[in-house]
Amino acid sequence: MADKKNDRKKIDHNRSADVAALAVLEQNAGLDEGRVETAFDRYLKMQPQCNFGKTGVCCRICLQGPCRITRKADKGICGAHAYTIVARNLIRAITSGASSHGDHGRHIVYTALNMLEDKAGGYSIEDKDKLFRVAERLGLDTENKDERKVLEEVAGLALEDFIKASDDPCKWLESTVVEDRMEKFDQCGISPRGIHTTIAESMAQTHMGMDADPVNLIFQGLKMALCDYIGMHIATDLSDILFGTPEPVTTEANFGVMEPETVNIALHGHNPLLSEMIVRAAKDMKDEATEAGAAGIKCMGICCTGNEVLMRQGVPVLTNFLSQELPMMTGALDAMVVDVQCIMPGVKAVSECFRTRVVTTMSNSKIPGSYHVAFSEEEPLERAKEIIRLGIEAFKERKGQEVNIPQVKNKVTAGFSMEALEEILGAVNPEQPFKVITDAIDSAQLGGVVLFAGCNNLRVLQDHSHSEMIRELARNNILMVATGCAAGSAAKMGLMNDEAVELHAGEGLKSFIHALNEANRDKLNGNKLPLVFHMGSCVDNSRALDLATALARQWDVDMPKIPFAASAPEAMSEKAVAIGSWWVALGIPTHVGVVPEVTGSALVNGIALQIAEDVYGGYFIWEEDPAEAARKILDAVRERSWKLNLHRKLAEQYDTPVSAGY
Amino acid sequence: MADKKNDRKKIDHNRSADVAALAVLEQNAGLDEGRVETAFDRYLKMQPQCNFGKTGVCCRICLQGPCRITRKADKGICGAHAYTIVARNLIRAITSGASSHGDHGRHIVYTALNMLEDKAGGYSIEDKDKLFRVAERLGLDTENKDERKVLEEVAGLALEDFIKASDDPCKWLESTVVEDRMEKFDQCGISPRGIHTTIAESMAQTHMGMDADPVNLIFQGLKMALCDYIGMHIATDLSDILFGTPEPVTTEANFGVMEPETVNIALHGHNPLLSEMIVRAAKDMKDEATEAGAAGIKCMGICCTGNEVLMRQGVPVLTNFLSQELPMMTGALDAMVVDVQCIMPGVKAVSECFRTRVVTTMSNSKIPGSYHVAFSEEEPLERAKEIIRLGIEAFKERKGQEVNIPQVKNKVTAGFSMEALEEILGAVNPEQPFKVITDAIDSAQLGGVVLFAGCNNLRVLQDHSHSEMIRELARNNILMVATGCAAGSAAKMGLMNDEAVELHAGEGLKSFIHALNEANRDKLNGNKLPLVFHMGSCVDNSRALDLATALARQWDVDMPKIPFAASAPEAMSEKAVAIGSWWVALGIPTHVGVVPEVTGSALVNGIALQIAEDVYGGYFIWEEDPAEAARKILDAVRERSWKLNLHRKLAEQYDTPVSAGY
Repeated sequence: MADKKNDRKKIDHNRSADVAALAVLEQNAGLDEGRVETAFDRYLKMQPQCNFGKTGVCCRICLQGPCRITRKADKGICGAHAYTIVARNLIRAITSGASSHGDHGRHIVYTALNMLEDKAGGYSIEDKDKLFRVAERLGLDTENKDERKVLEEVAGLALEDFIKASDDPCKWLESTVVEDRMEKFDQCGISPRGIHTTIAESMAQTHMGMDADPVNLIFQGLKMALCDYIGMHIATDLSDILFGTPEPVTTEANFGVMEPETVNIALHGHNPLLSEMIVRAAKDMKDEATEAGAAGIKCMGICCTGNEVLMRQGVPVLTNFLSQELPMMTGALDAMVVDVQCIMPGVKAVSECFRTRVVTTMSNSKIPGSYHVAFSEEEPLERAKEIIRLGIEAFKERKGQEVNIPQVKNKVTAGFSMEALEEILGAVNPEQPFKVITDAIDSAQLGGVVLFAGCNNLRVLQDHSHSEMIRELARNNILMVATGCAAGSAAKMGLMNDEAVELHAGEGLKSFIHALNEANRDKLNGNKLPLVFHMGSCVDNSRALDLATALARQWDVDMPKIPFAASAPEAMSEKAVAIGSWWVALGIPTHVGVVPEVTGSALVNGIALQIAEDVYGGYFIWEEDPAEAARKILDAVRERSWKLNLHRKLAEQYDTPVSAGY
Repeated sequence: MADKKNDRKKIDHNRSADVAALAVLEQNAGLDEGRVETAFDRYLKMQPQCNFGKTGVCCRICLQGPCRITRKADKGICGAHAYTIVARNLIRAITSGASSHGDHGRHIVYTALNMLEDKAGGYSIEDKDKLFRVAERLGLDTENKDERKVLEEVAGLALEDFIKASDDPCKWLESTVVEDRMEKFDQCGISPRGIHTTIAESMAQTHMGMDADPVNLIFQGLKMALCDYIGMHIATDLSDILFGTPEPVTTEANFGVMEPETVNIALHGHNPLLSEMIVRAAKDMKDEATEAGAAGIKCMGICCTGNEVLMRQGVPVLTNFLSQELPMMTGALDAMVVDVQCIMPGVKAVSECFRTRVVTTMSNSKIPGSYHVAFSEEEPLERAKEIIRLGIEAFKERKGQEVNIPQVKNKVTAGFSMEALEEILGAVNPEQPFKVITDAIDSAQLGGVVLFAGCNNLRVLQDHSHSEMIRELARNNILMVATGCAAGSAAKMGLMNDEAVELHAGEGLKSFIHALNEANRDKLNGNKLPLVFHMGSCVDNSRALDLATALARQWDVDMPKIPFAASAPEAMSEKAVAIGSWWVALGIPTHVGVVPEVTGSALVNGIALQIAEDVYGGYFIWEEDPAEAARKILDAVRERSWKLNLHRKLAEQYDTPVSAGY
């Protein structure tokens, strides 16, 4: 028995590299009674997992199925080949991902429009400058218009990108990517008509007896992925306008941010609409907490709602996706407020063993048996207070009882919107801020730029690949940005601060960051720049694309030529599948650290890994081993740097512009 | 060896009740060489099928999966219960179904709009009366407007139902269902915002970590299903306007319609846009066929494209879904032209063994290696001719060679649009045509009305349940209408003509149909009415709902009170799942002859079978045995007749209107 328990513990341990998460898991595993079931346990119970599903060759698209491709049955009942089945499943995943980011973006657009009709109390235009910049980028005439009028027009265009049925390009695509990319999208017929139409098209095209052609299907998948990008960029822009554009901010991350004597409230999900209000309400309600015997109210973030309030309000990071159930198990979490996406239904069962109030807030994302306080645009602050009161109530129940908070936390400096980066780089080169990066790459001070994005996934060790790869790329002078749960991982693991620069950066990267620190000494409030730059939640991968675009424009080349790569070491959600796909369509090598469900078709897999590069310049790299993955990313980025420099030298020699000779 | 072969034959035989299909299968099974693989073989090879998938408890929604609910692993890795997993899978199926019907409807709307801009050559307004009736139903002011203007407005409103983002009810829902139903939909929050928005919502709501609440999910599923209905009704209305509203027409069905000496062209798929043009072009091209040594060109239909051209042009029925590969195996089919939906990719491999040109035509529905002639709205007739020339070329190759056409065909009288029915009933009661039916039910001459709809599905014997149930309900004086492959089945099996009335109808039904024949003697061109009334393709389930609505209005009651049921004995596609779901939301008992993938959750299954009735009045009946299914449908319809009569009598006795007392 004892051995068995130890074995179990050992396996559990092996699934996270986060010492705080491990401490909670270990304590739980040691319990003889009252042991709580978490995703870590459920993953083990679920083994072995179905290999047909894992490789994408299980088709459940009609009621004659399921059909599973085997040596004996090498086609579906309808005659569909593995390539059709795999491609259809893949496109449906991209479609759900794009729909989810779209849902998020559309919600904020509606809030903005309702605000203008005085039907969304508490919201306002927080960043007028951003509003006008976005308007001008969209080609709107802003002269003699007040900010409400401009917002009306911007939000109207955003809504149009969702619902429009005309063949004009989507405004948020056309106005944000380099021209060569738009041409490429037009050539390949993947410039989408509108987000919603494309979603409808994709779901129709994957119906039984529709498209059997994997290439045709994959092109539709990429069109769908571009819609994902559009929805995300809209979400980022409108969030910045309504809640402010992030600026550098320093706080802490990991379970140690919980305090025994405060009302601890976790904000979990993806959307800033309610969480921003909870952060505001918490400030107003200190007295109520004090009356209940608490030292105060402390908000902290999980997943991307966490990233949103970290970026704009400096709210500490509690944890990322995979360990979302664990903070409750310390006994110190009083409420977990959730909005949309990546909320494990399992949180409800865990909360039953403790006192944590799990509060769902959105009409399209409920968990049976949990508290539900319906989000209201009319009275968001009132609802926020109602939720916080649930937390205070829970605190009263736990007051004086022992809690068990692992004392693990790390300093985090976050808040690097494109605007913030531009300002920091502008301190060195005010005329051409992004030339600071391209020059550093041209002179080999930096090796290139890499984005870390994506989720956690129990198929691999939580946070392990993120940390290993970040350290390895840092050593090799790669400038790194991060979003989503990848950023959460870096934050928790102590890789998102200035100490990490000193510990891990190679000489080039270190001197690059030091120079920026020096130039920005007055602006950083005594703080220094981190090893990895946090650009926001997963919708804010739009910011990372803006960065790549700024670099391409600075070099005056198309995206496939820039030494930039993306990596999702622990991709988990369909949103991640969509994001990865648009990075590829946008010309960027994209590493994924878990193998997606496409390997059942050599053809589809080959398109992802190789043929995509011939058409779009971007391609996927599947690699689970972090050392290998880092090496492959470095190779990809270095090859591009080398080519870029070679062509520059040739261009100088023959006096022709670099983009022409390429 | 011989025994094994016989066994194999026997199993094959057991999977169709259609003697023409059986003849081809048997001949093929008897071949020692050159045996062709069909869906019938692939079904057997696919056994046993995965029971997790069959019961809906396999979740592949995130990259941590697949998760399969077992006794050991009773929740997904994220903590999702079986009810969440089953409900999400179900809703995605409804979403694809609604997207497919929407795609079909939207395509026709665009064609109409392009026609008005002179960008769709060859199309015209064929039924001006229907156009104006639809416009008036939609509340449009048609006075002093010419037909092009009215069509512009109608098509504009249709497009609006697809793309709109406002909360106004969808026009095609509001204007076609009884008022009480709209109220019910509003009460339950399932009146959709617009088709595309609802599709996007559904795909977001089923993302990882979104809705875990099965009831919430199912309500969204029903909202999605109403969008399916809206898209279908738009498709039917616009098709009637552009191609004419069907009127009774008599022709033949089954493989015997192929002729050895003609160029035989099968029209397969769902959309009339191209097939109508092929039928026209075929008439123009007789000389080219004669030059090639053929006696002419004969078009014939498969699936719902077949139903479309049967209903409007009297084109013979070749076969329905499941046997779509078999006509090629007679050696006599020269071309199979396909558009969208329910086209087995397997047709390509079969065609390679013969000379048949498989021609795909739509950009979102290709089969690698087959001929592709891109449909063009600008020049549809030219493309149609190009396709027919491929058929003529194939004919030249096969001319003089032996063909093997099973001499099986049955007379079919089809073409029963609502307008056609109204005229036929109007011959008896010009003021209140549908009172002819309600009176017959009130007087127990008829037992009620049943719609047969849906597909074929290899899980059960092809066409067997359709025929058995039709005969049993006929004996019990049920008035029957049919659409889609259910109608195709009745047509092939000889149940869609006047002889079937004499053979199978009970006394009440027989006298009812005889009286209609008598009253319409001058109108039916010497033909008589059939046992089952063909209302069209699967999008034309909208016509069947219009019939149910007309009856409810005639009785002045809400839909859950009318003795009307729907049955899909061999449901196969996600469209069928969507259709069944809206019938339930519209208050109608709906039998499905294969058990859908929901039984893995007792909760979701219970909602479908029971709780749905409490909320909507409609509910599902799963029953694979045709005799049992017929009994259950009869029980459901009779219970409603009995209640309706009881309440009418009470109402008469106490002099209160029937709807109040109910």
